[in-house]
Amino acid sequence: MTLDGIKEEIKKAKKIVVLTHESPDGDAVGSSMAVFLALKNNNKDVDVIIPEMPRTFEFLPGVNEIKKESDVEKYDLAIALDCADIKRLNGFSAYFENAKRSIVIDHHSINSMFGHYNYVDPVAPATAQILCGILKYFGIEITKEIGTCLITGIITDTGGFKYSNVTADTFEIAASMLEKGVNISNIYERVMQTVTLSRFNLTKIAIDRLELLEEGKIAFTYITMEDEKKVNAEFGDHEGIVEQGRSIEGVLVSVFFRETEKGYKVSLRANNNSNVNVADICLIYGGGGHIKAAGCLMQYPLEIAKERIIEEIKRSIK
Amino acid sequence: MTLDGIKEEIKKAKKIVVLTHESPDGDAVGSSMAVFLALKNNNKDVDVIIPEMPRTFEFLPGVNEIKKESDVEKYDLAIALDCADIKRLNGFSAYFENAKRSIVIDHHSINSMFGHYNYVDPVAPATAQILCGILKYFGIEITKEIGTCLITGIITDTGGFKYSNVTADTFEIAASMLEKGVNISNIYERVMQTVTLSRFNLTKIAIDRLELLEEGKIAFTYITMEDEKKVNAEFGDHEGIVEQGRSIEGVLVSVFFRETEKGYKVSLRANNNSNVNVADICLIYGGGGHIKAAGCLMQYPLEIAKERIIEEIKRSIK
Repeated sequence: MTLDGIKEEIKKAKKIVVLTHESPDGDAVGSSMAVFLALKNNNKDVDVIIPEMPRTFEFLPGVNEIKKESDVEKYDLAIALDCADIKRLNGFSAYFENAKRSIVIDHHSINSMFGHYNYVDPVAPATAQILCGILKYFGIEITKEIGTCLITGIITDTGGFKYSNVTADTFEIAASMLEKGVNISNIYERVMQTVTLSRFNLTKIAIDRLELLEEGKIAFTYITMEDEKKVNAEFGDHEGIVEQGRSIEGVLVSVFFRETEKGYKVSLRANNNSNVNVADICLIYGGGGHIKAAGCLMQYPLEIAKERIIEEIKRSIK
Repeated sequence: MTLDGIKEEIKKAKKIVVLTHESPDGDAVGSSMAVFLALKNNNKDVDVIIPEMPRTFEFLPGVNEIKKESDVEKYDLAIALDCADIKRLNGFSAYFENAKRSIVIDHHSINSMFGHYNYVDPVAPATAQILCGILKYFGIEITKEIGTCLITGIITDTGGFKYSNVTADTFEIAASMLEKGVNISNIYERVMQTVTLSRFNLTKIAIDRLELLEEGKIAFTYITMEDEKKVNAEFGDHEGIVEQGRSIEGVLVSVFFRETEKGYKVSLRANNNSNVNVADICLIYGGGGHIKAAGCLMQYPLEIAKERIIEEIKRSIK
């Protein structure tokens, strides 16, 4: 069984490196820190590498031990968390490729199974939720600190227990975390409710620009690199903007474009009441994701990219 | 024991009326509908009276059976839910006073214990959560429909599982509801996430006007009667605007003015990390509230009202 194999690899490994995807979100950082702390508590020699750490998650236990880089050659075992493909490890995939053995633990259904061991559960709303089960199976204690990291991943990837990906297990885990003393409401406030001024101002621009199309069934907005410069945007400030459109009564699909050096990064969110599969739409442009939340990169001018995406959505709404 | 007494009263009663507080929220409506459905499923002759039913909760099962009024004389037993005092039953307290026997089930610590039987648990985040325990104790099945009503009460009174009043039981209940097939994410979306277009546009105006004062410690914004007319505002559309300012990192107090025929309605929210008591500030102008959330009415021109309130807040911050 995969989990027994994973356990054996961890047991044998002398130097372990924990990696996650680029532009890490709460599940990426929370899962990484949880595995790092769990292995450390079990006397393993482990590094966690996160080159760009979002400020929002700096309250997590252990973050002062995060490395930005390390020696590519020195690891026996690499563990990639919440990462669907080796390309998403981006600049630090060399750590993964150079490690003698590798493990992938993830919840994305499109995972390319790029490790020696791949434990992928697409039904889990967060990699952090999968890790709860794995740590239990391994008999590793989920301390208050590890619980804080795991619940952060679960909160961010379920939108604070609100998405349809939430399972009974999600709530069972939250109950047990509360009993361990994990301050869920405080974590919720930190990761979901507090916004920096630059994020507030960037969201304001996007809200001002928001258009409703197709009799209010599609919400569309965008931000440019210029906007981000103007508000002194920090990394991750655009996150959540797509939810603004989705929250409006009657909207079935919310579209958000973010201009980058490489093109427009497109985020799509479908309402629970809609039948639209936004992952399928993003697949057309080489992206992917989940049925209700997906993304892709479009290398066209704004108006053309917008027109094409809106056209696809219109087709799916019908 | 109170619960056995309550069970006995329900058993004996021929005609039962279920009541809740004026301006009913999700816990008031959800709890009422849950008790109504539970008693009906157990072949009791029961009415539920809610004169002003908010549109948000019209998706709840059984709402088409809600009465706006009834015969005051005809009930053996009245059950008041989520209601701290008989005064909050407002225009329909006569049903309560005329019933031969009465039961109060509530979670407000200030409950005045105005029934023959009073079951009040101030630790419970919602009356709906208390009802989960009571129905279980009574051996009444919590169907998917009853679960839908109860989880609606829990979601609204915990801010969607985010307030510090959430207990391990809250999450356990949510897990068991999911297993019964209750669509929590759909309910969450309906009661917490969906904003009407008029509310969205009113909030946009307020966000555009938002100023940060005192080096970002005070957020200030306002809306006029003219604004409300412009966006076709419905009743309650201004609610939550004061939270926009409070969510910005570094803000200690958020101030929101709403112009009315009588003057400016002032809402103040202090951040959890601040030491400011906004109830004290509102008291100066004849208002009041809680330490972190209070309000008052100011009958001055905008600029003067603003200056006075900001001055008081500056004094409290120091």
